[in-house]
This record gives sequence, structure tokens and C-alpha cells, in this order.
Amino acid sequence: MPNEKHPDVMDRLVSLCKRRGFIFQSSEIYGGTGSVWDYGPLGVELKKNIKDRWWHAMVRARDDIEGLDAAILMHPRVWEASGHVAGFVDPLVDCRNCKKRFRADDPRIKGEPGTPDAQCPSCGMKGTLSAPRQFNLMFKTYMGPVEDTASIVYLRPETAQGIYVNFVNVQQSTRQKIPFGIAQIGKAFRNEITPGNFIFRTREFEQMEMQFFVEPGTDMTWFEYWKEQRMQWHRGLGIDPARLRFHQHTPEELAHYARAAFDVQFDFGGTLGFQEIEGVHNRGDFDLSRHAEYSGKKLEYVDQPNNRRFTPYVVETSVGADRTTLAVLVNGYREESVPGESEGRTVLAIHPSLAPVKAGIFPLVKKDGMPEMAARIAADLRPHFPVFYDEAGAIGRRYRRQDEVGTPFCITVDGQSTSDNTVTIRDRDTLAQDRVSADQLRAALQERLAR
Amino acid sequence: MPNEKHPDVMDRLVSLCKRRGFIFQSSEIYGGTGSVWDYGPLGVELKKNIKDRWWHAMVRARDDIEGLDAAILMHPRVWEASGHVAGFVDPLVDCRNCKKRFRADDPRIKGEPGTPDAQCPSCGMKGTLSAPRQFNLMFKTYMGPVEDTASIVYLRPETAQGIYVNFVNVQQSTRQKIPFGIAQIGKAFRNEITPGNFIFRTREFEQMEMQFFVEPGTDMTWFEYWKEQRMQWHRGLGIDPARLRFHQHTPEELAHYARAAFDVQFDFGGTLGFQEIEGVHNRGDFDLSRHAEYSGKKLEYVDQPNNRRFTPYVVETSVGADRTTLAVLVNGYREESVPGESEGRTVLAIHPSLAPVKAGIFPLVKKDGMPEMAARIAADLRPHFPVFYDEAGAIGRRYRRQDEVGTPFCITVDGQSTSDNTVTIRDRDTLAQDRVSADQLRAALQERLAR
Repeated sequence: MPNEKHPDVMDRLVSLCKRRGFIFQSSEIYGGTGSVWDYGPLGVELKKNIKDRWWHAMVRARDDIEGLDAAILMHPRVWEASGHVAGFVDPLVDCRNCKKRFRADDPRIKGEPGTPDAQCPSCGMKGTLSAPRQFNLMFKTYMGPVEDTASIVYLRPETAQGIYVNFVNVQQSTRQKIPFGIAQIGKAFRNEITPGNFIFRTREFEQMEMQFFVEPGTDMTWFEYWKEQRMQWHRGLGIDPARLRFHQHTPEELAHYARAAFDVQFDFGGTLGFQEIEGVHNRGDFDLSRHAEYSGKKLEYVDQPNNRRFTPYVVETSVGADRTTLAVLVNGYREESVPGESEGRTVLAIHPSLAPVKAGIFPLVKKDGMPEMAARIAADLRPHFPVFYDEAGAIGRRYRRQDEVGTPFCITVDGQSTSDNTVTIRDRDTLAQDRVSADQLRAALQERLAR
Repeated sequence: MPNEKHPDVMDRLVSLCKRRGFIFQSSEIYGGTGSVWDYGPLGVELKKNIKDRWWHAMVRARDDIEGLDAAILMHPRVWEASGHVAGFVDPLVDCRNCKKRFRADDPRIKGEPGTPDAQCPSCGMKGTLSAPRQFNLMFKTYMGPVEDTASIVYLRPETAQGIYVNFVNVQQSTRQKIPFGIAQIGKAFRNEITPGNFIFRTREFEQMEMQFFVEPGTDMTWFEYWKEQRMQWHRGLGIDPARLRFHQHTPEELAHYARAAFDVQFDFGGTLGFQEIEGVHNRGDFDLSRHAEYSGKKLEYVDQPNNRRFTPYVVETSVGADRTTLAVLVNGYREESVPGESEGRTVLAIHPSLAPVKAGIFPLVKKDGMPEMAARIAADLRPHFPVFYDEAGAIGRRYRRQDEVGTPFCITVDGQSTSDNTVTIRDRDTLAQDRVSADQLRAALQERLAR
């Protein structure tokens, strides 16, 4: 089903990301690690800018949310309380002939697994597929020298539980009053059977989660508030509002702990289309109650002025840092013709605040003092924001290279520059060139970056 | 052996860190996870400030170092090439009677393990201790649905290998010329048998590593350069220079891959004393050569102007984010008397740029418009830097609370403030109070924070 509005750019984007140093396949020289990716020099800056923007919006700019950085390795009882040990499973079937494994709902399987009619999609034998059995998606390892059931620990499949188990510690140390939230950014791991679509679904990924603790009865009001806040945040990244929408979970989709849930979806284009990049969930008191039950500790809020205690409800906002990075890249990717030029260009039209490099600095030609002046300008700007000095090749080619990595401004030192101390600023999106005094350059760029 | 200069403050620091929300025991409500810690609201900001400062100094402020964020899960061959599968081991002994395990060099073991004379330190039986056998310190897990030797992957025990395997991808995508470096910040995991000393040695920790690729023959010059740079960086964090020193690895201490190695050590005080917080290593061509051999790929640098290829040497700087955080806390921790006051105070004298909260904002009393004016000031400052509004309790107690978490400045709105629009700024270290116009406050604070 072709996507009329947004064609599939994924293959070209993957290629650009490798060529220009945004994202590489993990351990590529060894043939890669299954659905794991490394962020290169430009990718790490883009993702860091997104994470810092989230941290500022959710933690530093507010007085009602506290930050946290809980560890990846947690006590194994956490995952019994959360329901992950029993319920975080996918049904798998084995072929007794070729020993391959498949998800029970693999569309290539013909017939009902476990019956004589079922046909293996790999070796083609009939009647060799086992009945489905449950496979837990948590990575497990052993802590300490002995590998036995008592030493099993899991790599966390989500960061949220680190917030719940620290609820009392955070509330008491900060003296926050309800309603308030706890936010964290961190890695999580899921042993997915069918990962894919570049960095969309990976076995190692990074979440930005915030759990907002509220008085029961006010939860739906806060749920609506956070839905709107989070949609605004995605729009603020420069993502086309027409590519963003809410998807409300149907009763069948709702997780057992959820009272209400909406996904923020982005249209990735092509056959992938609209997919979840964030979830906003009203989790009620499920998590704190379960951890209270399993730990034997009171996880309540003490409302001293009113002399009462209660278990808060939780409204969760959970966004993927990798998925948001991918959405920003896909949203910004354009191939277009350039007026008055025979060659077209590829542009990453990403928000200037997210761009890994804020300005390219070029001498028009490699003589007459231009390289010296351009290098001096680059050195002056570098302590304030990331810039890239480039003197190699034709100026048009240097502009194209910066367009392709999303650099919003290019500064050119030309023949006039060395005599009147002016330079040109070229705008990535409008292609307009303004001439400004070199002394005013930093202020001019800062003003443009703040727009 | 008591430390004359710096008494042991660790127990009091651990208590302060929990009470005020710097660092909590992981999964504390379940009895904790072995030597794993969570960073609370103030700790996550302190550690983030340290990491951002490193990233700025090592990546953004330079044009010869590129950033990277490689995944924790890598191809298992990486750890064969690096030598970790064969060599990253500790010798352990078992007691056949009580089934306990110990490091073979555990000082509580009497006699030679494996001989009839050896005595178990736990059950006290003689002759029950096995001969030492090698125990690998890497956490291992299985990727994909089948748990067999073909699906083993490891949690990386260091971030460095993610840089080596990406050397060609980074160099080619950025067109960097030698000498240049690749830097990254990320989690690593070691299944330590004897972790401890709070966040000094933990099973999950965060490294800030930079690998600098140089032409063979220039390596010792760059080694000396990086030794000095890195020592300067630690001093720039405000750490007392007298508590920092170099420790040169003796020939016995040198790792098999190292041509030279110095540790930066910090005096943690008490019996812990001087301990490594950073390592600067000349690793020669060991890593790139091994990965070239194991992957069958060329990992060379092509020096086009001179028409030659070579395998670069590597100078590594590897610093622990957690250890640096602990050093900053220990260095800053002081209990002191206050002139003219009967009660003393506890101060975290940490560098203003690292402080989790830059300013406490207080109304002197809860009336006469002071809370409103103070709250307005807090809201105006919050978008620019983290501030904390507090109106609870006596003003002296509020100052003490901020001293204890390292807040460099306290702003007080008093009776005069509402009439002449001035406030006082109290300096954490000198206790001096200056009166400034509320309109000039943000500039006054920014000027003091930049000192």
C-alpha cells in the first residue's frame, strides 16, 4: 500500500547516515550485531540535542519534576512485581526438523503449529512445528561468580520501574508535594524476535520517561494535560504537524495496568506509515501497589496538612530517544532541485537547535588570506557552538555537503571579506545569502539559532 | 593506617547522599542490588554537569576529536580480539563443604587453596578449598530465542572497543586526518567479585573514554600532552591539586597491550587514600592490529599526500564518571563551625559550574509580599539555570540546607526588597552577602557562575 503523501526514504536515509557519520551498524567489521546500531559523530550530537531538549523541558524548566538516573541492573523481584517475568513474553514455535524458531504468529507459517498440517517456513517439512511456547523478552544474566537461579538479574526492559521503586526516596529527599513527577533518560533492552526498520525497533534502545504522581480522581485531568504537552514538544522539534497524530488504545490494546492510553504516532512514510514514537498512559495505582505488595514497604504519599495517606495514581509519558531521532531525520530528509542549478541537492531540514553542526565556515578559495580569516572565525565560534571548517573542493560542493547533514548556516569568506571584514551567511532552507560584519557574526548566528 | 591530611568522610557522605537525593542504593526497597547505585535528583544533575563538561572540553571545543555513542551489546568476536574472553579473569576457589566462593587471593584464606592445609574462611573446614580456577568478569547474556554458545553476547566491560571497531567508519565519514581522536561516554559492566567503597567500584558504571590515533613515533609526545591535559581538566573541576597525583605503572603493572601508562589518582581520604580515577595509556597498535586480524578487515590510515598506509598508534584517556563524581563530592565535603553562630554547618564546596542547584531563592518571612516576589524571581531564573524556591522554616536553616547540597548562592527577599526592588546574594564559601537590584540579579549570578 503506497503512502501517497510520504514516499519511503528509509534506504536512502540509512545510506546517508552511514556515509556522513550519523549511524553505523554495530560491530560492522564483524558482520554486525543483530539490530543494534552505533551513533557516529553527527548522530551522537543530534541525539544528545534531542535528549537535552527533553531534559530541559521536562526537568530543568519546571519546579514539579525531579530527575533520576537509576541503574540498568535491578533486583530481580522488581520484574516479578511489574509483571514482566510472567507476562513479558512472545509465543514461539520450534521446527523439530531444521531446529529453527519462529514467532507463532509468523505469517509464513502454514497451518496451526503443533498439528500434523503445520508446515515449517524454513525447511518446508510438514508436522514438525511444535505447539507455541512462551519466550520471555528480557535479557538475563548472572550477578556474582555462581550461575544459578538465585543470581539471575535482568537487563531492564523499561526505565519506568527504576522510578517507581525510588518514589519514596525521591519524594522524601526533595520534599515535593503531589502532584509531581520523576523523569529519567536511559538505556533499556528487549530481546525482540522481529526487530527492524533501522533504529525504529532495536534490541538496545534509549527511553525518555516521566512518571507523574497525582491524587486519585485527578488522573484523567493530568492525563489530558500531558497528552497535549507531549504533542506540543514533538511539534517544537520542527516535526510537520500533519505527520503527527494521536492513536487511542482500544479496550483490546490496553495493557492490564492501564486505565487509558494514547500513542503519539509519526508518519514514517512508505509502508511503515504511522507508528508509535511516544506513549502517554494512565497507569492508576498498579505499579506502586504491586511494589508495595512485593517489597512489603509502604509506598504511599503522606498528605500532612489533611492528615491522610494514599497511593498516588501515575500518568506516564514514555518516548523513544532513538525513534524521535529517526522521526526528526525522516521528517527532514528531502531531495530537491535548486533554482538556476543543474544539480539537485539532498537536504536534512532539521531544526537549527537540533542540528549537529550549527555553521560551516568556508574560505571561497584557498588563497589571498581567505583560509586564515575563515580558520580564525571558526576558532572564535567553536567554544560557543559546533562549527565545521572546510576548504576542500568547489564552494557549491561544500554547501551541498552541509545541506546533507542539516547544517542551518554556511559562512563564506570571499575576496571582499579580507578588505572590509564582512562575510556572507547562507541559509540552508531559503538559500538566501546575507552579508554581515565579521565582528557581528556570532551575535547574528545566535539570533538566527534562537528563532 | 590513618590518613593524616584527609579523614574518612565516606560514611557521612553516603548518608548525606541518600538523605538529600544524590545517590540511593539500587532497588533499596527490595534490599538492594549488589554494588549498584541509582542517582537521585541532585546526583543526576551533578553527574550530568561533569559529563557535559568533559564532552565540551574533549569534543565540542576541539576540531580534532569526534564524538561517538556505540552500543553496549557488541559482536562477541570483539571480546576475543580484545583479549577479554581469554584474559579478563579473576582466580576463584570453591569450598566443597559450604559451597561458598572466594577470590584466590582473599587474605582470610589460610594456606594454599587446593592443598589439604587450606582452611575455608567461611565454614572453617580444612582441605575443602579447590585449586583456583579462572572466572571471567564479563556479564554474558543470550541474543535471540535460543540459549546456546552461538548466541552468547557480553555486556561491554569497557567502551574503548566500540571506538576501535568504528575507526574506519568515523575517519572516512568525517575526513579527519591523523592525529585525531574519538570520544564517547557510556555504561560498562564488570562482574566484580569484590566491589565496594560506595560508587568507587561498582558492577555497573559509566566511562568517559577518548582514543587518540597518532602516527607511530609521535606516540610518546602525545602521551605526555594528554597526561597534562587530563590533569588540568581535573584541576578545572575545582579539585584540590594537593589531592591529585600521577602514578606511573611499573613494568609489573603494565597491561600486555600498553607501552606506557599513568593513572591520575585522587586522595579519597581515610584508609582508601590515593586511588585511580583516570588512566592515560599508550596502547601502541595493539587494538587496531588485533581487530584487523580477527575481522579480516584493513584498519589502516591512508596518508594520501605521502602515498602510504599505516596502522595508527593509540593514546587513550579513560576516566570514570562515577569515580570523578565521588572525587568531587569527597573533595567538597566539609564540616565546619560558623563564626558568630553556635551551630556548625556541613558544606559541599563544589565548583559552581557543577552544582546541581545554582541558587536558592528565599522570602525572609512568609508575609508582606515577600513570597510572591521570591516566587516570581525563581520563575524568571528557572529557564536559565536550576534554582530552588524554599519558604519553609527559619532562614538560617534554609541556608544550611543549601550549603549541604553545594548551592553556591542564596538569594533572599527581605523587608527592604519589596520597597526598593533589591535582594541579597549570599556566597556559600565566603558567607558574604551583597545587595543587588532584582533587575540585575540574573546578570550578577551569571557573572559569578562564570568566575
